[in-house]
Amino acid sequence: MKVVIVGGVAGGATAAARLRRLDESAEIVVFERSGYISYANCGLPYYIGGTIADKSALTLQTPESFRARFNVDMRTRHEVEAVDAKRHVVTVRNLDTGEVFEEPYDKLILSPGARPTQPKLPGTGLDRLFTLRTVEDTFAMKDFIDAEGPRSAVVCGGGFIGLEVAENLRELGLDVTIVQRPRHLMSPFDADMAALIHQEMRAHGVRLALGRSVEGFEERDGGVDVLLAGEEPLRADMVVLAIGVTPDTALADAAGLQTGIKGSIVVNDRMETGVEDIYAVGDAVQVSHLVTGDDALISLAGPANKQGRVAADAICGLDSRFAGAQGTSVIKVFDLTAAATGLSEAACERAGIAHDAVVLSPMSHAGYYPGGKVMTLKVVFERETYRLLGAQAIGYEGVDKRIDVLATAIFAGLSAIQLKDLDLAYAPPYSSAKDPVNMAGFMVENLALGLVSQYRWDEVAKLPRDGSVQLIDIRTPAEFERGALPGFRNIPLDELRERLNELDPALPVRLVCQSGLRSYVAARMLAGHGFAGVSHLAGGLRFYDIVTGDARLIERATPCGADAC
Amino acid sequence: MKVVIVGGVAGGATAAARLRRLDESAEIVVFERSGYISYANCGLPYYIGGTIADKSALTLQTPESFRARFNVDMRTRHEVEAVDAKRHVVTVRNLDTGEVFEEPYDKLILSPGARPTQPKLPGTGLDRLFTLRTVEDTFAMKDFIDAEGPRSAVVCGGGFIGLEVAENLRELGLDVTIVQRPRHLMSPFDADMAALIHQEMRAHGVRLALGRSVEGFEERDGGVDVLLAGEEPLRADMVVLAIGVTPDTALADAAGLQTGIKGSIVVNDRMETGVEDIYAVGDAVQVSHLVTGDDALISLAGPANKQGRVAADAICGLDSRFAGAQGTSVIKVFDLTAAATGLSEAACERAGIAHDAVVLSPMSHAGYYPGGKVMTLKVVFERETYRLLGAQAIGYEGVDKRIDVLATAIFAGLSAIQLKDLDLAYAPPYSSAKDPVNMAGFMVENLALGLVSQYRWDEVAKLPRDGSVQLIDIRTPAEFERGALPGFRNIPLDELRERLNELDPALPVRLVCQSGLRSYVAARMLAGHGFAGVSHLAGGLRFYDIVTGDARLIERATPCGADAC
Repeated sequence: MKVVIVGGVAGGATAAARLRRLDESAEIVVFERSGYISYANCGLPYYIGGTIADKSALTLQTPESFRARFNVDMRTRHEVEAVDAKRHVVTVRNLDTGEVFEEPYDKLILSPGARPTQPKLPGTGLDRLFTLRTVEDTFAMKDFIDAEGPRSAVVCGGGFIGLEVAENLRELGLDVTIVQRPRHLMSPFDADMAALIHQEMRAHGVRLALGRSVEGFEERDGGVDVLLAGEEPLRADMVVLAIGVTPDTALADAAGLQTGIKGSIVVNDRMETGVEDIYAVGDAVQVSHLVTGDDALISLAGPANKQGRVAADAICGLDSRFAGAQGTSVIKVFDLTAAATGLSEAACERAGIAHDAVVLSPMSHAGYYPGGKVMTLKVVFERETYRLLGAQAIGYEGVDKRIDVLATAIFAGLSAIQLKDLDLAYAPPYSSAKDPVNMAGFMVENLALGLVSQYRWDEVAKLPRDGSVQLIDIRTPAEFERGALPGFRNIPLDELRERLNELDPALPVRLVCQSGLRSYVAARMLAGHGFAGVSHLAGGLRFYDIVTGDARLIERATPCGADAC
Repeated sequence: MKVVIVGGVAGGATAAARLRRLDESAEIVVFERSGYISYANCGLPYYIGGTIADKSALTLQTPESFRARFNVDMRTRHEVEAVDAKRHVVTVRNLDTGEVFEEPYDKLILSPGARPTQPKLPGTGLDRLFTLRTVEDTFAMKDFIDAEGPRSAVVCGGGFIGLEVAENLRELGLDVTIVQRPRHLMSPFDADMAALIHQEMRAHGVRLALGRSVEGFEERDGGVDVLLAGEEPLRADMVVLAIGVTPDTALADAAGLQTGIKGSIVVNDRMETGVEDIYAVGDAVQVSHLVTGDDALISLAGPANKQGRVAADAICGLDSRFAGAQGTSVIKVFDLTAAATGLSEAACERAGIAHDAVVLSPMSHAGYYPGGKVMTLKVVFERETYRLLGAQAIGYEGVDKRIDVLATAIFAGLSAIQLKDLDLAYAPPYSSAKDPVNMAGFMVENLALGLVSQYRWDEVAKLPRDGSVQLIDIRTPAEFERGALPGFRNIPLDELRERLNELDPALPVRLVCQSGLRSYVAARMLAGHGFAGVSHLAGGLRFYDIVTGDARLIERATPCGADAC
């Protein structure tokens, strides 16, 4: 059996190694367009900033090392230009010699990846415009920086690569501006959660030009003007294009494969295309979203590697299946960690799923043990069924842990209420006896039982200030003095029982506190005294201030103790 | 409704707060024997060592603050001495005044906790012997240390409290010896994994006297002799007894409740005892082990808190159920983190469950991003069904994360093979594209498919060295030179294909490498060339050296790349 693999990174490299382990006698040929195989894609931005200082760290595997271990014919600088599915041959160009030849296959795996999306705008070919996909791209950008010493950069696009590049350029001391059309960075996050990312970026001196349309690029006086619709251009010494990736599927078209979203290759869960003996894996394929079951493009390394293994298994007759992807991801944003899994609220809306969410600000570990930091956690669930749909967490410590736990819970089909029952590891340096994930479960259960109802940050502005709704801030007087929402008056939680006579049980009450914990306790208290229309602010003032940029009261939240939830 | 709660920490405090939130009109009285409520149990050892410097951090809630917020009558220094279930009254002693009175209840929640087990040995009452359960115990120990300046300590017992106390005393500069009967520390871990803990303790100057029987204590020359069976006594300025805890169930007996393991209170999943209107929660109750379904004692804060909430719910007519506990736990051991969930191999043996395990040494995050550290991960599964049973992890970073993911997978009833499909968050600072948990899944699947078989560290010594089995070390010559297992000869993996003629396919082969990755690749290679009886060492030489204390080759393991599993 002869297997030809197009693409020697992530999915392609994994497939090659797995194939060899399953079949010692197969002939395996890999054609990789770039000069490097199995390289550290996700590490490339960190080479720009110098966190990864050693070139060789980016390219742990070489064609020679791969050949020695796996007896795989790894041919870099070879581009596959055409597929003849009937004749079972691919047409290959040696990019160094220009030679073009045909290579026959019994089985073909396409792992061409995704290309940085190139906007169709004037000036995209300029020298000072960079993209970051390959090791070569990385070296080109690094060499330019070392040689030219640019002092400013505009990064077009505020997704994973955009943010990582912006951070690394900032680490080098450049003035950095991120420009993009969406109004918030990092589309896996909802706008409210993304506000935390905006805050961190700005705190580290990155300028954000959000909701802007780039109309082109012009070289001027040794720099680049980034032209904006209806605004002065942004001027910089270099520009990085990171507005997303597009499946690299020229070959799929050539081979007559069925294509889906953005021209991606349609495959089944064995990574088989509709054409016999052709498999496809990685960023170029359309996957089934594990939560919605819908078709999706998820360009992440985890799924790509899993798919490579599945394709190899399928070719060797094993019954492996790709279980689908749920977009679990994490990014370092300077000192912050931001992670997400499953569906955001925005994604639920796009998918037409009735949803709700809880927002909490737990400590990463027990409040009484030094070093704990507040994180912000949002858990999204289906409104009627309480099925767990997604989660987002942003903070300084233990963020990736909670998202991985929630990702596992989503994978397993747990309900958001069951999160309360998870038996998670607790010792003071690591968590609290009620882990943040448990707390989220308690909060969802309280909603499900009708014990409490909540209003969201974007409803605050619409609250009537005419006395028809009683707006109560139940923080301490000292907290209230430092600033409060307009129209709210202060009745501290610990005085509320004695001051019930100041409130009318017949009128609705909207409560607020710093993190949403005390307002929940107050809501239960009022409910116990016959108040019917009580609701409290999800996430509390802390979250409201973060989202609205009010920054009035962004401070350490009350840690969750035995007294909460 | 009047609810009386016995015990104002963890389960009891949680129950009180939840009750109030569910029922504003209930009368709630809590009797707590000690002078403190809702204190930071698990933080007490860290006050001894000074990591938690502020006394008030240990006791965030006071009876007054609890009363103000929850309108709960919190009475510290009150011991409940008897329960009359028929008359629905408890007999209470005010420990300050000596007054004894009766308190009626409609519902009674027992949350008396567990006492440090007191060995029945001569000398247990000595002044220089300490236990650590309450805030008072902690202050007593701390005061003694401050006043007397002890220079040495013997800690009896190598469980959670024993290790945490030992570490904290060591941080204060004391000579510390841990003595215990079991041959390895930390019973949630198997002996092999515990070897990593032993190594860390010894590296920080803690002496371990394992497999020793303490026979008593004698005061001599201003210190204590800890008498051992058949050995010289251990001499120290102070002794800490931390040989475990025993459910504190005098009351249960008095009330005629059904008791289980070690006299613990038998409850159902609503925390109801067999006696009407009496509930019990926390370390004093017997729980259902989530993995085995067997009765178990699990004295941890997480379950206690969950149970308190369930009891309150049950009393208020909500249908909450305690889902069971699986013993998920974590401990800081100097620079190490050690965490476990579910069943160890030893626990499987005790429960009569046919099991197997994989052992791996993955990097905590991508090898090419700075700061990654090797961890050791063992995943235990049922032999025929591949049901996930338990996991243990020890390392420096990301250990608690992997155990919480595995705990969630166990809770959800996933198989060990499904671990390969989990969609976990990856970016270079946090993980690898194939997370350690995914890797464990791949390894289990390979065993399930019969692609590879493994032998364990304790079989190494029994391997025949008579030529009937071919013993091959497939590391590099440089690695082999630094030390190898007796009887093994070196054929580096990358030369194996060319040197197959040196091996006899008809004879069994036992392979070894540093971490078990390369030997797996070699095993597949040999299988592909018709070798039938090939097996490789689970966990590799690194693990063997750790377990046997050989320390020949304990070094950074090969990181898992695209080429592995």
